[in-house]
Amino acid sequence: MNISKRGQEIQPSPIRKLKPYADKAKERGIHIYHLNIGQPDIPTPQPVLGAIQSYDEKVISYGPAQGFLELRQAIADYYRAYDMPVAPDDIIITLGGSEAIHFSFSVVADPGEEIIIPEPFYTNYNGYASFADVKIVPLTLSVKDGFRLHSKEEIEAKITPQTKAILLCSPNNPTGTVYSPEEIERVISLVKEYDLFLIGDEVYKEFVYDGQSHKSVMEYEEVRDKIIIVDSISKRFSCCGARIGAVITQNKEAYQSLLKFAQARLCPPSVEQKAALAAYRMGMDYFQPVREEYEKRRNILFDGLKDIPGVVIHKPQGAFYIIIGLPIEDSEHFVKWMLTDFHLNKETVMVAPAAGFYCTPGKGKDEVRIAYVLNEDDLKRSIEVFKAGLEKYIKL
Amino acid sequence: MNISKRGQEIQPSPIRKLKPYADKAKERGIHIYHLNIGQPDIPTPQPVLGAIQSYDEKVISYGPAQGFLELRQAIADYYRAYDMPVAPDDIIITLGGSEAIHFSFSVVADPGEEIIIPEPFYTNYNGYASFADVKIVPLTLSVKDGFRLHSKEEIEAKITPQTKAILLCSPNNPTGTVYSPEEIERVISLVKEYDLFLIGDEVYKEFVYDGQSHKSVMEYEEVRDKIIIVDSISKRFSCCGARIGAVITQNKEAYQSLLKFAQARLCPPSVEQKAALAAYRMGMDYFQPVREEYEKRRNILFDGLKDIPGVVIHKPQGAFYIIIGLPIEDSEHFVKWMLTDFHLNKETVMVAPAAGFYCTPGKGKDEVRIAYVLNEDDLKRSIEVFKAGLEKYIKL
Repeated sequence: MNISKRGQEIQPSPIRKLKPYADKAKERGIHIYHLNIGQPDIPTPQPVLGAIQSYDEKVISYGPAQGFLELRQAIADYYRAYDMPVAPDDIIITLGGSEAIHFSFSVVADPGEEIIIPEPFYTNYNGYASFADVKIVPLTLSVKDGFRLHSKEEIEAKITPQTKAILLCSPNNPTGTVYSPEEIERVISLVKEYDLFLIGDEVYKEFVYDGQSHKSVMEYEEVRDKIIIVDSISKRFSCCGARIGAVITQNKEAYQSLLKFAQARLCPPSVEQKAALAAYRMGMDYFQPVREEYEKRRNILFDGLKDIPGVVIHKPQGAFYIIIGLPIEDSEHFVKWMLTDFHLNKETVMVAPAAGFYCTPGKGKDEVRIAYVLNEDDLKRSIEVFKAGLEKYIKL
Repeated sequence: MNISKRGQEIQPSPIRKLKPYADKAKERGIHIYHLNIGQPDIPTPQPVLGAIQSYDEKVISYGPAQGFLELRQAIADYYRAYDMPVAPDDIIITLGGSEAIHFSFSVVADPGEEIIIPEPFYTNYNGYASFADVKIVPLTLSVKDGFRLHSKEEIEAKITPQTKAILLCSPNNPTGTVYSPEEIERVISLVKEYDLFLIGDEVYKEFVYDGQSHKSVMEYEEVRDKIIIVDSISKRFSCCGARIGAVITQNKEAYQSLLKFAQARLCPPSVEQKAALAAYRMGMDYFQPVREEYEKRRNILFDGLKDIPGVVIHKPQGAFYIIIGLPIEDSEHFVKWMLTDFHLNKETVMVAPAAGFYCTPGKGKDEVRIAYVLNEDDLKRSIEVFKAGLEKYIKL
């Protein structure tokens, strides 16, 4: 009796596996600044909490597999505020962005088939690829140019007869890169030419700085039937634990299959759908101060790190992550060391080793991902502690 | 560009696909008694709703992938009340029983491998089998003997080198059968002999009537490392929409893989885990009146149906479903007809055609599943309406 190969091979979460060392540091009385996980400290908006507290159904019953119509309507309204003609019947509410990824992978590809994804990428793509037995073909980007997308020819070279889709995550977790229209158009022309699906993971849509805005892959009308959008309220409204996301497509055939996947798991959580509805009904004004807060943090982090000798850094344009190169050989060892062997006045910093965001073995070993999810004071202090740790580590 | 084979082949929910006809009947002013879906009318217990209404976190943040320790402890306590030594670290909180099924299938079998399941079975096993690309090998039971399990030899004949697990659902959805210890032991001896996993879907554990009790597959110590339990609060505490379930195993290797699957989707919903915690903390006394209510309904339904000429029926021992044979050729046609062509004083009844609960083509076409999820008066009335409809249909 053996467990399945996929059960053995699925990658443990590279972010979570260092947690035991963090727990032990805390036991020793060390304060840890957590820059390793994308858990924002921004309070969940009051209308969202209020919707939970005023939940007044007598029976928490099954809802529709595709989610409550009211919520799908509110999400359609949100997209229309971006001039994107999304209808409630293009939307299936999912259990976080996670399920939206899983459904997307499963609807475009059968076991063994391929999805091209620029790496480094959101580490849970790996998990879902194992789970759905789909092969991720990485397009390896570089910290040196701020993770810009390759030329059309270089992307094209990755396409095989097994390729079923290309996935673009923008604003990007873990790099903070926002793809320009020109970069996106390289991919648009390829999915058209090779008749592929294009999965757009756009959960950080609002988190774009310097007065720029995010261009959605769904804005390209000529490929609209090839687009599947992965969406989530987790970061948008600072409610990661609510597990409400969405998968959106105007391809009717894909929608029908996604709906059948959704029916198999009955429905998304009823209470938290009400919370999500309250979130979307707040309107678009909610985002401005949140965006300003993150832009301020981005600036603090970038300014604090950019002059450290040996650090390779580009200013991220969106999301709330950055991947930087460090003058070290093994960032996992460094991150662990920061938890086990280092503190500055009883304080240390936890970041995420970047190797887990690559699927090419050996890549990202001298890089870390930093999530700027702390307030200004904590962020400034954590940069000092990080610098002190890095300096000491390099001299070991 | 085609959608995946699994996306095309996944079976639409046989329960939900007749919904449009029900919607149209309602538009015509017909009242429908819904005996087609396992949505209990029992109110969600007040402490559960209270836990939601008093949710007081400032940020709905990510919880642990395996679920909150407090909740896992409360579930372990619940199992200990049944003298089953389940520990918090044997438990992973899932997104309903649905995800527990999906995780179980994925951890025991790789694409193309087999799981033996007595049919008729819970229809969403089909969905998850497609989704995980696992093959269900049915062991076809018969309405004529109340869906009793076959002899050891007949079950054994289904085992091939590809077989990775046997799944037993008891108390059974959709048949209402509760397997006797002797029936369970046939399977126990086979999983021992052939070194297979045994998945126990025991979400209806409390719903056993006539003073009997349910024997869990986990009570067999000699195979404890081969057992994976699928569990859920949906029916137990009448909160189907909360999407809180659990997968439980004492096989450490399987647990580690299940945990990695869980990490890929980050965490179960935070708010509804608090609701589940309140549910488990109510203690075991909660179940007695609920069980009595369902036992009364079971008796009303059985007594109301047993003397209808041509109906093949056995008294179900548990859960809140029954599958009966009808003197008709195509129960899907009959169910649809009850919605489109029949009413008795503006009332009709919706039941579920049983074919969707079988994976062997052609099976169950003269059977329907009835869920006794209505109160006494509605149930009595719905039996009258059902009888009148059936009589009229037979004479067509």
